[in-house]
Amino acid sequence: MLVRNAAGRQVETTFGEVTMKPFSGARKYGFDSKLTTLEKALKHCGLKNGMTVSFHHQLRNGDFVVNQTLAAIKELGVKDIRLAQTALFTVHQPVIEYIKEGVVSRIEGSLNDSVGDYVSKHPLNSPVILRSHGGRWAAVKTGELAVDIAIIAASAADEHGNCTGVVGDSAFGPISYSQVDAMKAAHVIVVTDTIVEYPCQPQEIQERHVDYVAQVDQIGDPKMIVTGSLKITDDAEKLNIARQCVDLMDAAGLIENGMVFQSGAGGISLAAVKYLAERLEEKNVVASCATGGLTKFIIDIYRAGRVKKIYYSQVFDTESIQFIQHDLGLPADIGHYADPTSKGRTADSLDAVVLGATEVDVDFNVNVNTHSDGRLLHGIGGHQDTAAASYLTIITTPIFRKTNPIVRESVTTITTPGAVVDAIVTNRGIAINPLRKDLLKKIAGSIDFVPIETLKDMAYEATGGPASPNLGDDIIGIIKWFDGTVLDIVRRVQEDNI
Amino acid sequence: MLVRNAAGRQVETTFGEVTMKPFSGARKYGFDSKLTTLEKALKHCGLKNGMTVSFHHQLRNGDFVVNQTLAAIKELGVKDIRLAQTALFTVHQPVIEYIKEGVVSRIEGSLNDSVGDYVSKHPLNSPVILRSHGGRWAAVKTGELAVDIAIIAASAADEHGNCTGVVGDSAFGPISYSQVDAMKAAHVIVVTDTIVEYPCQPQEIQERHVDYVAQVDQIGDPKMIVTGSLKITDDAEKLNIARQCVDLMDAAGLIENGMVFQSGAGGISLAAVKYLAERLEEKNVVASCATGGLTKFIIDIYRAGRVKKIYYSQVFDTESIQFIQHDLGLPADIGHYADPTSKGRTADSLDAVVLGATEVDVDFNVNVNTHSDGRLLHGIGGHQDTAAASYLTIITTPIFRKTNPIVRESVTTITTPGAVVDAIVTNRGIAINPLRKDLLKKIAGSIDFVPIETLKDMAYEATGGPASPNLGDDIIGIIKWFDGTVLDIVRRVQEDNI
Repeated sequence: MLVRNAAGRQVETTFGEVTMKPFSGARKYGFDSKLTTLEKALKHCGLKNGMTVSFHHQLRNGDFVVNQTLAAIKELGVKDIRLAQTALFTVHQPVIEYIKEGVVSRIEGSLNDSVGDYVSKHPLNSPVILRSHGGRWAAVKTGELAVDIAIIAASAADEHGNCTGVVGDSAFGPISYSQVDAMKAAHVIVVTDTIVEYPCQPQEIQERHVDYVAQVDQIGDPKMIVTGSLKITDDAEKLNIARQCVDLMDAAGLIENGMVFQSGAGGISLAAVKYLAERLEEKNVVASCATGGLTKFIIDIYRAGRVKKIYYSQVFDTESIQFIQHDLGLPADIGHYADPTSKGRTADSLDAVVLGATEVDVDFNVNVNTHSDGRLLHGIGGHQDTAAASYLTIITTPIFRKTNPIVRESVTTITTPGAVVDAIVTNRGIAINPLRKDLLKKIAGSIDFVPIETLKDMAYEATGGPASPNLGDDIIGIIKWFDGTVLDIVRRVQEDNI
Repeated sequence: MLVRNAAGRQVETTFGEVTMKPFSGARKYGFDSKLTTLEKALKHCGLKNGMTVSFHHQLRNGDFVVNQTLAAIKELGVKDIRLAQTALFTVHQPVIEYIKEGVVSRIEGSLNDSVGDYVSKHPLNSPVILRSHGGRWAAVKTGELAVDIAIIAASAADEHGNCTGVVGDSAFGPISYSQVDAMKAAHVIVVTDTIVEYPCQPQEIQERHVDYVAQVDQIGDPKMIVTGSLKITDDAEKLNIARQCVDLMDAAGLIENGMVFQSGAGGISLAAVKYLAERLEEKNVVASCATGGLTKFIIDIYRAGRVKKIYYSQVFDTESIQFIQHDLGLPADIGHYADPTSKGRTADSLDAVVLGATEVDVDFNVNVNTHSDGRLLHGIGGHQDTAAASYLTIITTPIFRKTNPIVRESVTTITTPGAVVDAIVTNRGIAINPLRKDLLKKIAGSIDFVPIETLKDMAYEATGGPASPNLGDDIIGIIKWFDGTVLDIVRRVQEDNI
């Protein structure tokens, strides 16, 4: 049908089965500052009872943003919020009060420490849902976890909403968890204490996704956001475990030119990086890249020419912050790193990863979520993602802690199933998953290992065996595998047991 | 309901109204090379008759990828392809043969030059649909333009599919048009002549979106991809027009600290950048950023400390390629630059932009698509996007070319409606859109201007007025406004007129 449009033209609007609208007028676009207060931003986003509000955890135990936001939500008289943070820390203890007051009634995300302890004993209306980094990204991407308002803490932002975690007094490293929230949430608020001249550089989150920029006095305590200087343990037993991890990688033929390894900031993991650095030198090997978290120790390897590229999703210490301020390199957001619904993840290239555990069992199942008393005190993090992705997934642990056997018949909670766990390296020996016949063949003759049952027996002998946690029937938590299925459930801890 | 899952756990799967699937098993992920040939990649992607295949145009007139892909499609015996390229150039003349053979039957995208001439005279089954850069991004994003297979030319890629246009023999600048294709297309093929060690750095497109990496001998002719050294015109009339543009910006109060300006590579636009650089020096002004296309001239301004940041979506000359290889700075993909469905675009910050025209009319409507004989020879590019975004949108043109009046009663085709066009700067005077009373007030007394009708009268006097194009009834093209509406239609050119 020919119609006269707003430009005065006679235009056809029907083409076969396709109908198009005629031009209805043009206007000038422009820019209005998005700068406001946190409270106003929440109001303008239409905050109301029952909404889902998301956060990233990159300010770690220095974060002020979750608490400030919940205070503003309470001030606005809104209740029944579903928290969708990537993780909580000790600093988030006030969340317990918001739960008691009904401001927060549901949680999907890690709740380390005190909030975890509380929720373990006081079930919320629905169980807390825990996902791995990659699993959470996928859940937000697919709409399984629909976010109404994404709160994105930034150490610097411009008035348009372009923002970063790389510069500013509270720098924490590139924002890497929030891109999917920015794309998928109905509303997006950037929270910052540092407004920079347009355009903010670098900019991990861009204005195209941002509704408001909320300026606050301080987003966090810089001393608690990154560690000034990470130290490698001097515990001889831990150092020995770390060294055996590197021996195992070497025996498996992985310490070769082009190697890809994961780095973390945990005690044994950090020590393993140090020993790996020495082994790269000894063997005159150049790795192709390190992935995961950036630390001074990785930078040392890079500067020594022993790793060509650094792919990082987190930054852990001051030296690394300074390093990326000078050269951003290859930051990888969590979707790039671990989204299981994607066509390829950086984690999939891993040759070796060293991970921890609160418990392991004779089926090589690993628990990192609950303690043996049943309390849900830790998140999944990248444990599942990297374990399933790495050619050699090593779990390090002592066989017992105090009177508690860590290697046991059955873990209290499964975080990562034994099917993707390859080796358990302990203070009393190494066990190799019998499913990995290829690995067993490679290391035969160069690495001593024992059946995992032997490690369990030693642990039981030393401790008298595991105590039974005192659990109720209520389900307080759901552990999801990163494909969205229910891997395990966590039941209420009866208070009189504690 | 409690069920026993694949990890041997009794888990609940129903929580209120939410049902979840029980864990069904874990497997190791890993990496298989995505490297293959272009033909095999197309086959593996399930190429079939009627599919939509997209391309970016950043290899410009040096591009071999569109022609190679169509040759492979023909070889596979597939027909009726809808081309969804961002633009075609002279090098793509073979597309005419593919149209004649039925390999290509529909086109959504710019078809500059010979293909445009052909289609103007030989309608395809459906009209060609032309969109601005931002409009195309939005159409792919919203699904209005659904892409089956995205072909992404890269000057370097790794076997995982991470890729770039910044390094390699055929470097063309950061890939900036294809992110939305990568995210939305059902299948994605990266085409490159340079395989680099994993991980490719930088990486504008990441493995998470890529199905196959097709290695070809050469993606293009480097000499035709970027210009060795751009030269500023020495045509006195053009230089005079460029200088008047800068005078107009200055009179409008825009040449102040914090200014944001758009840079291009067209003759007058380039000269305007040169004069703007001089004016910044004279007035001791520091702009906050330049957006658009990067050239040596912008880099000179940056090095002189007269612009703080460079936001660029394209790279035009060898010096700029070398510059970004050293420091990537702030590349802006086309969605960031101009997606009209986003919450903020870099273009919206523009204080001033200088654009061209094939015709302008007394309502300040601008044509950049057709010549006055009706032939559809040019794309929209960023014309609409920047015109609607910039505070001061200047169109530069001579009032006539040879015997053809450029300033006229009515443009042959509307590309950008007069509502967003502020000034016409010509070799015979300046006209200001009477709708812009604010602008008129600012420049009164410092800039001489005339009614646009005066410019038209002069053009008609010199040429005897416009000739009527000899057009048929068939609609061969649709010009969309960036919001998806029909701004104008283009009718068939009768061959005997040419």
